[in-house]
Amino acid sequence: MEERKDQHEQLSADELREVWAALSEDERVEGFLVLPREDAEDLFTSLAPLAQGQLLGAIPPGQRRIWMRLLAPDDAADVLQEVEPELKDELMKLLDEPNRREVRALMAYAEDDAGGLMSPRFARVRPDMQVDEAIRYLQKQARDRLEAIYYAYVLDSDQRLLGVCSFRELFAATGDKLVRDVMHDEPVTVREEMDQEAVALLIKRHGFLALPVVDAHGHMKGIVTLDDIVDVVEEEATEDVQKFGGMEALEAPYMQTSFGAMIQKRAGWLAILFVGEMFTATAMAQYEHDIAKAVVLAVFVPLIISSGGNSGSQASTLIIRAMALGEVRLRDWWRIVQRELAAGLTLGVVLAVVGAVRVLGWQFAFHSYGPHYPLIASTVALSLVGVVTVGTLCGSMLPLLLKRVGLDPASASAPFVATLVDVSGLLIYFSAAKLIMGGTLL
Amino acid sequence: MEERKDQHEQLSADELREVWAALSEDERVEGFLVLPREDAEDLFTSLAPLAQGQLLGAIPPGQRRIWMRLLAPDDAADVLQEVEPELKDELMKLLDEPNRREVRALMAYAEDDAGGLMSPRFARVRPDMQVDEAIRYLQKQARDRLEAIYYAYVLDSDQRLLGVCSFRELFAATGDKLVRDVMHDEPVTVREEMDQEAVALLIKRHGFLALPVVDAHGHMKGIVTLDDIVDVVEEEATEDVQKFGGMEALEAPYMQTSFGAMIQKRAGWLAILFVGEMFTATAMAQYEHDIAKAVVLAVFVPLIISSGGNSGSQASTLIIRAMALGEVRLRDWWRIVQRELAAGLTLGVVLAVVGAVRVLGWQFAFHSYGPHYPLIASTVALSLVGVVTVGTLCGSMLPLLLKRVGLDPASASAPFVATLVDVSGLLIYFSAAKLIMGGTLL
Repeated sequence: MEERKDQHEQLSADELREVWAALSEDERVEGFLVLPREDAEDLFTSLAPLAQGQLLGAIPPGQRRIWMRLLAPDDAADVLQEVEPELKDELMKLLDEPNRREVRALMAYAEDDAGGLMSPRFARVRPDMQVDEAIRYLQKQARDRLEAIYYAYVLDSDQRLLGVCSFRELFAATGDKLVRDVMHDEPVTVREEMDQEAVALLIKRHGFLALPVVDAHGHMKGIVTLDDIVDVVEEEATEDVQKFGGMEALEAPYMQTSFGAMIQKRAGWLAILFVGEMFTATAMAQYEHDIAKAVVLAVFVPLIISSGGNSGSQASTLIIRAMALGEVRLRDWWRIVQRELAAGLTLGVVLAVVGAVRVLGWQFAFHSYGPHYPLIASTVALSLVGVVTVGTLCGSMLPLLLKRVGLDPASASAPFVATLVDVSGLLIYFSAAKLIMGGTLL
Repeated sequence: MEERKDQHEQLSADELREVWAALSEDERVEGFLVLPREDAEDLFTSLAPLAQGQLLGAIPPGQRRIWMRLLAPDDAADVLQEVEPELKDELMKLLDEPNRREVRALMAYAEDDAGGLMSPRFARVRPDMQVDEAIRYLQKQARDRLEAIYYAYVLDSDQRLLGVCSFRELFAATGDKLVRDVMHDEPVTVREEMDQEAVALLIKRHGFLALPVVDAHGHMKGIVTLDDIVDVVEEEATEDVQKFGGMEALEAPYMQTSFGAMIQKRAGWLAILFVGEMFTATAMAQYEHDIAKAVVLAVFVPLIISSGGNSGSQASTLIIRAMALGEVRLRDWWRIVQRELAAGLTLGVVLAVVGAVRVLGWQFAFHSYGPHYPLIASTVALSLVGVVTVGTLCGSMLPLLLKRVGLDPASASAPFVATLVDVSGLLIYFSAAKLIMGGTLL
């Protein structure tokens, strides 16, 4: 009775997972250790590698072995890549010898490569087995050490991949057929060193649950499964979004990133953007005399440049995301120019109309702009068309250009677009003012 | 010989898929129809529902039946939801009766609900079967109509879900055990009307390959599989990114969105942003007299407000993405305030130092700012600290506030943050100027 009540005051595994990020290390360990064993397993295996590593470091050393051994080799490798070198060696020692060998092999791969994602535990059969025999052989592998069964991989005696058949196909085939007659030849494979984003594209495109990973000689090394890819897709999207917001991608969730790391990731880009934006001060300085003559010009500067910035960021968001999803490629650039030029002009005209209405409305309501208000309205309208068109074109072309010269379009576009669009916006605005107001206000 | 050569001049399935988005409808049909049957199947099943629907509408009507029947019921339902009503009825007629019933049932669900994602073809067993018997029964289902086997779902005679066991567990168990002794009770389930984003979170959290979908009475309706979730994760990320870039989310890939639809999606937000930014003109107008006295003040306006905007968009990106991933929740708001206040002050000081160095540097190099340059440098530095701090705080709090009042933080943050930060940036800048330059320049 007493014990039941105690457990009721504790958090359940689901509750604990919910608030995990917000808890202190002590609270996590305390909550984790009182969970019933099965719930604790569920919770532990569902944590991200970073959180698993932190937890392993925080629980009593005597308990680490059972949790390390619960991890599949690819997950163990991920955890070990997240912890301090000292803890890493200690945790490594807790694995049994065959596992340790597998984990060490996996750790040799870069985390973002196919090799770093793959699991070495896949179901293997021989081409000259009969289907019945293959099923029994798989049954034995399932009891031993398979994590899951999606496909059976057909290997020759040299571990070279000959073909693949889905478990369903094998299972549905008549028992005396040969595996080689059921299997698909020339399976889609990925190479160990392939980048995880490319692996994700491939696995999604073909709609497979898993892809075999092979080395340069066609030897099968492991499988990358769809559930690894879900994490990759999400991770890449987060990186894109963060770079897009004008910062370096964080390596850990927001709440778990230290203040110092966070400032580092943010201050760098912010300073670069700031230095870029300094050109606006240089540009503005060229027009100081014009502003002195017609101070009203200064009033519309923020409105004009923000319109350019907004249309530029719209266009670059669209193109960067479309590139990330493989919807547009470099060679489409001319079609994009045509499309975005037309879009920019249309959007510019829309804003010009709204802007002119604003100036005329304020004039009739408050007489804000004196007798020359038609000139001011025309200047604002004309520059909006120009600024929005230039913003849209720059915003759409810069990501392509950056990709062309080998830079990451997601991370480098924002500062370039912002600076370029703001500076050119000022030039367009003051040029339009000179054109329209020259001889009267200027 | 002649025929082989012909085929060589055609695009392969992979090449065709690569350039698919860039081709005209005629080119697609032409390329598709000359593919060998197996390649055409691969290509067809790998296309998005929208593209499948377009292709079905474009190929000769006599060929539609074989392609419609190739689709699994949930995929067929997705395609039918994308096509014109007329074509929809025609395609529906091509299905055989049991399939048509399944498809119609699926189409009753909203596209973004668990019910709209699920497949009705799952593997079912009875609790009182022996494992051997269950495996034979599954083998029969595999031959008939299963798409894939991940889990066997244990149903009572009333189709109520009692438990689940992974295929590996069933396969690895000794043959004379009862299914009820192998299965897990109380399986994790989702309800038909659950939103796809919530389903994605759940399936990822538990690391399952599929989740069973049940109705209010516990009757099993279908399964949502991980491969549906990959698309969901990507779709949601794209929507977030696009909303973030200041536009409505597109419903189709960039190249396939019509010019009119594109302008609609973009012009709306751009105009809202523009109207918001008009407040900057109102704010600037209040300071016309100050600018007339010290025109140099106008020079730094774009630099100051862009710094506020950049720090605001950094902070809101971080928080919006962290909310989407479930890393931060509303009740964390006070911790976020503390964190972002500290971050904003730190980042503001960094930019203030850079800004002051810029003013002093230009003064010593070009004598740009006259005898009062220390006042100008101080004004710029002080306002940068203020503007960046306010920008960071607004950027991080507004998404939380919008979520609190039930709005979508991703789509509404950008305009609010931009306007708020730009207007308050101007107020801060000119107030700092008055404070520091009052009596000398002003």
